[in-house]
Amino acid sequence: MKEYASVNKEMLAELEAVLGAEYVLTAADKLEQYKTDEETDPRMFHLPEAVVLPGSSEEVAAVVKLCNKYNVPVTVRGGGTSLADGAIPVCGGIVLLMERMNRILEMDTTAMYMVVEAGVRTIDIQKRANEAGFLYAGDPCSAESCQIGGNLATNAGGNKAVRYGVTRNQVYSLEVVTPTGEIVEVGARLKKCSTGYCMEQLIMGSEGTLGIITKATLKLQPLPPYRFDLLAVFDDPVKALDVVPKIMQAGLNPTSIEYMDNSYVRSTADYIEFKGAPHYEDGIYVIITVETFTEDELDLKMEKLDELCEAAGAIDVLEADDRIWSMRRNCQESVRLISLVSLTDDVVVPVDKIAETIKYIMQVGEKYPFPVKINAHIGDGNLHIVLCKCDLTDEEWEKNVAAFHNEVYSYAYSQGGRLAGEHGIGAKKLAYMEAYTPAGELELMRKIKLAWDPQLILNPGKIFNA
Amino acid sequence: MKEYASVNKEMLAELEAVLGAEYVLTAADKLEQYKTDEETDPRMFHLPEAVVLPGSSEEVAAVVKLCNKYNVPVTVRGGGTSLADGAIPVCGGIVLLMERMNRILEMDTTAMYMVVEAGVRTIDIQKRANEAGFLYAGDPCSAESCQIGGNLATNAGGNKAVRYGVTRNQVYSLEVVTPTGEIVEVGARLKKCSTGYCMEQLIMGSEGTLGIITKATLKLQPLPPYRFDLLAVFDDPVKALDVVPKIMQAGLNPTSIEYMDNSYVRSTADYIEFKGAPHYEDGIYVIITVETFTEDELDLKMEKLDELCEAAGAIDVLEADDRIWSMRRNCQESVRLISLVSLTDDVVVPVDKIAETIKYIMQVGEKYPFPVKINAHIGDGNLHIVLCKCDLTDEEWEKNVAAFHNEVYSYAYSQGGRLAGEHGIGAKKLAYMEAYTPAGELELMRKIKLAWDPQLILNPGKIFNA
Repeated sequence: MKEYASVNKEMLAELEAVLGAEYVLTAADKLEQYKTDEETDPRMFHLPEAVVLPGSSEEVAAVVKLCNKYNVPVTVRGGGTSLADGAIPVCGGIVLLMERMNRILEMDTTAMYMVVEAGVRTIDIQKRANEAGFLYAGDPCSAESCQIGGNLATNAGGNKAVRYGVTRNQVYSLEVVTPTGEIVEVGARLKKCSTGYCMEQLIMGSEGTLGIITKATLKLQPLPPYRFDLLAVFDDPVKALDVVPKIMQAGLNPTSIEYMDNSYVRSTADYIEFKGAPHYEDGIYVIITVETFTEDELDLKMEKLDELCEAAGAIDVLEADDRIWSMRRNCQESVRLISLVSLTDDVVVPVDKIAETIKYIMQVGEKYPFPVKINAHIGDGNLHIVLCKCDLTDEEWEKNVAAFHNEVYSYAYSQGGRLAGEHGIGAKKLAYMEAYTPAGELELMRKIKLAWDPQLILNPGKIFNA
Repeated sequence: MKEYASVNKEMLAELEAVLGAEYVLTAADKLEQYKTDEETDPRMFHLPEAVVLPGSSEEVAAVVKLCNKYNVPVTVRGGGTSLADGAIPVCGGIVLLMERMNRILEMDTTAMYMVVEAGVRTIDIQKRANEAGFLYAGDPCSAESCQIGGNLATNAGGNKAVRYGVTRNQVYSLEVVTPTGEIVEVGARLKKCSTGYCMEQLIMGSEGTLGIITKATLKLQPLPPYRFDLLAVFDDPVKALDVVPKIMQAGLNPTSIEYMDNSYVRSTADYIEFKGAPHYEDGIYVIITVETFTEDELDLKMEKLDELCEAAGAIDVLEADDRIWSMRRNCQESVRLISLVSLTDDVVVPVDKIAETIKYIMQVGEKYPFPVKINAHIGDGNLHIVLCKCDLTDEEWEKNVAAFHNEVYSYAYSQGGRLAGEHGIGAKKLAYMEAYTPAGELELMRKIKLAWDPQLILNPGKIFNA
């Protein structure tokens, strides 16, 4: 492991000279605020030595140059909603907050794009687009509190990925501060480009290890005015999951296909106090959303969809009203009825492997002393497996979680899957990343990291050890 | 410039030991065949010292290791259809042909993917998908002769990019031989992934400078059974081009939108001997293709499209039958009626800038002593500008072409455009690439190249000088 210097007085004075003293925080109570993100396990917490709030790309660049000069690491923090310890300064040093860079700089509805600073909340981007009759299609569940910069850095997924793809598919270009403190534009606002290396896609998903994203030019989509949400209820998970390829092959182009196993149907209905939830006792829910530009097209697609679900063996096909979506949205919260402590995982497998994978996980889960619950974006192969600690001792819990993860990750990789579909690797899964990634692939990543960040200044201790 | 060694007897013996003597070519007539690709200017030709035909990824890797050992550069050649001197071994050394690696290894229509070796012709992939009722959406004009590996290496565009995107959007994962001769898989067959660096997108479009693509897992799409081709005729280029954003905003999701200026309308009608081509005298053609999964949806979209074109000021709206498409396909060939020697360019600009860009180019063109003709994929901002040498002397031609290019490229960059939409940079535009790319961006590319290929073995003299 590389040795870093501590933040010293000289460096603080230089930071204050660049940013203004009010934007360089060192008070203990302030540092305390940034020792964690969504992580709740205190053993993963790490205090920064200073927290800085730059107001411009130039200031971000100046901070990074100072970090290089003083050999101090810097961890960027957006909304602090990482589920993978991505915003925790695991090697100490500086935490850099993007929250002052929160302006929407431009929106063009003719050319359908928006230029934003990285600290804008995702929901503000969505709202601004919607108000003008357009759609920004990135839609992570944390949209209300996360920032677009974090979405870009982790290649966030979310609720519209089946139709529109993930965050990396919503982007034309980025402004980035490189690990050595240069401001560089990568990508361009083009539909086609064959002019040099595609570095914007490399930087997206690199979790702040290859550059600090300061601005982005995002694609807007036309907003389909018509929408239908269908709930297909199954009593057999295999049948429920087999409907997915049929929907895709029929060209129905759904916005999302969501899955809740029966244990979630029960716990979420209980949690939101929805008496008479359809098939509470035995139902497995598949919720399918279709959006169109004409009412006629909607009718055509709904008819076809209904037909496909019936043919696939659905025991009931209904309209998914607000209460059904409320159940889906409250999956995580409903777990608290069962267990105060729980753990959410984020593996992803090829869409056609999801039925077998869910079956495998449920089977494997039976060996373990904790309830295993699954909700999934089944249209894109992304599984959120929730383990509930309930009354287990810390020791039992950890030992069993580790064993369960190893079984599940090994299986996912054997199916062509990966560790993280949308949450990222962060510090949390770094050891797994190193264990499961083939040496040659990891070596290529490492070479890029070392070439761009020879002093390992940007977000060390994340994804892999450089 | 780096100095390379010549291919010596020792190296040839090692190559023969790995590949078999029949797959290592050194006869003068064989070498002669590979001194150029689609390039017709003899001053750009360069003879290889040897040509090799590996039959497997392992053999490709062995060749690359030998090139590193002997300090000899290697240039990969697919179908040899590069319009940017991409397959010319400008620094000598080895030309590596992919043609023996031409197998379709797997097709799965449930999961909708295909695994292919890099030497498969693009048209064979398209046909195999079509026969099964699916679509491989990459569709460069050279599909009949180019290979998928070349499409991937240049991020080829083509005829379906408005709806489906370019080659890089059709790919799940690649098998790559790295510049040091390791076989590595990058990417995965997943709809979502947030597990380390996205190196497959970095390698695609790097024109063989970062790795030799040996296999690819390609996405298949459901094949829309219904199609309509509409010809909207305009007498004003601004009106013709203004229809594009309206079509996109209406969510009509066209497969392609093509543009032919009036000089092309005339020359292609003459070339294919189509008497009575609509509005031969004054028409500017916009050809719009829409494909759907139901007849009703097709009707709805055609009605809307017709309405939009009329409202945009089309002087005529007709069905674009085979003869219209034949005109479009014969744009390049029709130029021969005017000039034996011509030059096709490939700039790309944001879609909303294309009207101004075409206007600018036509205006600038008037200063020059050659006819300037434009056909364009206007749905994606990609312009093919054809300059006709006619009776100019070599000296006049070159001086004027260089001056014209500098004006056009400067303008394109001022509009957020780039040098190449789909042909790549190759050796042909390397000097322009270095002149127009900001230093910081070029430096990031260079660092990746040097980190992965410290001896500069793979395809030197392409894109930029490392």
